[in-house]
Amino acid sequence: MTARPLDLSLYLVADAATITGRSLVDVVAQAVDGGASTVQIRGKDLSAADLLALVEAAAAHTRGRATLLVNDRVDVYLAARAAGAAVDGVHIGQTDLPADRVRGLVGDDAIIGLSASLPRQLEALRRLPAGTVDYLGVGAVRATPTKKDHPTPIGWTGFAAFAELAHEFPCVAIGGVGPGDARDARRAGAAGIAVVRAICSAEFPAAAAAALRFEWADAEVVA
Amino acid sequence: MTARPLDLSLYLVADAATITGRSLVDVVAQAVDGGASTVQIRGKDLSAADLLALVEAAAAHTRGRATLLVNDRVDVYLAARAAGAAVDGVHIGQTDLPADRVRGLVGDDAIIGLSASLPRQLEALRRLPAGTVDYLGVGAVRATPTKKDHPTPIGWTGFAAFAELAHEFPCVAIGGVGPGDARDARRAGAAGIAVVRAICSAEFPAAAAAALRFEWADAEVVA
Repeated sequence: MTARPLDLSLYLVADAATITGRSLVDVVAQAVDGGASTVQIRGKDLSAADLLALVEAAAAHTRGRATLLVNDRVDVYLAARAAGAAVDGVHIGQTDLPADRVRGLVGDDAIIGLSASLPRQLEALRRLPAGTVDYLGVGAVRATPTKKDHPTPIGWTGFAAFAELAHEFPCVAIGGVGPGDARDARRAGAAGIAVVRAICSAEFPAAAAAALRFEWADAEVVA
Repeated sequence: MTARPLDLSLYLVADAATITGRSLVDVVAQAVDGGASTVQIRGKDLSAADLLALVEAAAAHTRGRATLLVNDRVDVYLAARAAGAAVDGVHIGQTDLPADRVRGLVGDDAIIGLSASLPRQLEALRRLPAGTVDYLGVGAVRATPTKKDHPTPIGWTGFAAFAELAHEFPCVAIGGVGPGDARDARRAGAAGIAVVRAICSAEFPAAAAAALRFEWADAEVVA
């Protein structure tokens, strides 16, 4: 199996619970304009019908420009894909459907991301066939109000240690990550930074995304 | 398409939120022993991993004895089915994935049930290909504490009116239904009664199911 193409450098988690008072689809469109390379649609409290509608609307903006992933709901991903939406895969957590079961449902071409931050989670993952999971979301780097059930913050030191342990997987840093973090993230071995509030709560999401994208590129030279 | 075999006469909604202090799988096993003909596993607050585990464990008890359905999560149904569990289909509500999209994901052999109680919902359903949906869950007959978002109670009169309107679909009565209701349900045109607390909260689920089953059969003679 060849690696699935994936640019995780600026990864927007478009969380319906965080985006209030404006359209999630607008935020996605602006973030992609600003340079977001991957977008995950998360709506833990949404009905499946509402989440599907968001995913399909977002896909019109990400098509050919950014990777689009659906959080948790593999059925929503499959329904959107079956209708021709440009949706690329799913992101799952440790209590969602098991990664190998998801791979069986989505097939070889879909991207699967998994939240992981503990060595035992990595060990479990290594017992699965190679290629089951494409990248890891690792954190929380810092405490954050946007995800109530996140594990204890691990800091950049903890992130770096885990990323080294999980060397065969691209690792995206998540949890309270935002402006000013690109250099630390790259030094810690991150394949990208995943942000929620840094874009979703920004007054100008496109500008916020562009600034984060610039920081990331700039940090490459220095790292 | 031929009709999918389906006995809705005693339909247990095994709701993880209602069953506390004992095992949901035990309740399912006992209900099937007592004569439940269809079992739906509902766990709106469960993780997908936990729901999948419940469905697979329940399937060992329903196999060959009762129809097993998964509430809302089509992906959980698909994952269980892919692993060989005896799971027969899904039950979806009006805010879950649209019925025609679900049919596309599950294929022709799976059972799809849909909650409906309004004429406009029936009209929307009739615009879909015949065979998209196998039965309707119609209610709430009475107000019930087990489903916070249920529509206004419709009573047996409302149920009968809707069942007549939806004559091409078997209609299961749900919402506060239990002992003593079989005769009214059959007179109102119900294909079965769907119960939550009447079995899930019973001291002896097998006996409760057997009593409901007896009532249903007995009411046939009188109706």
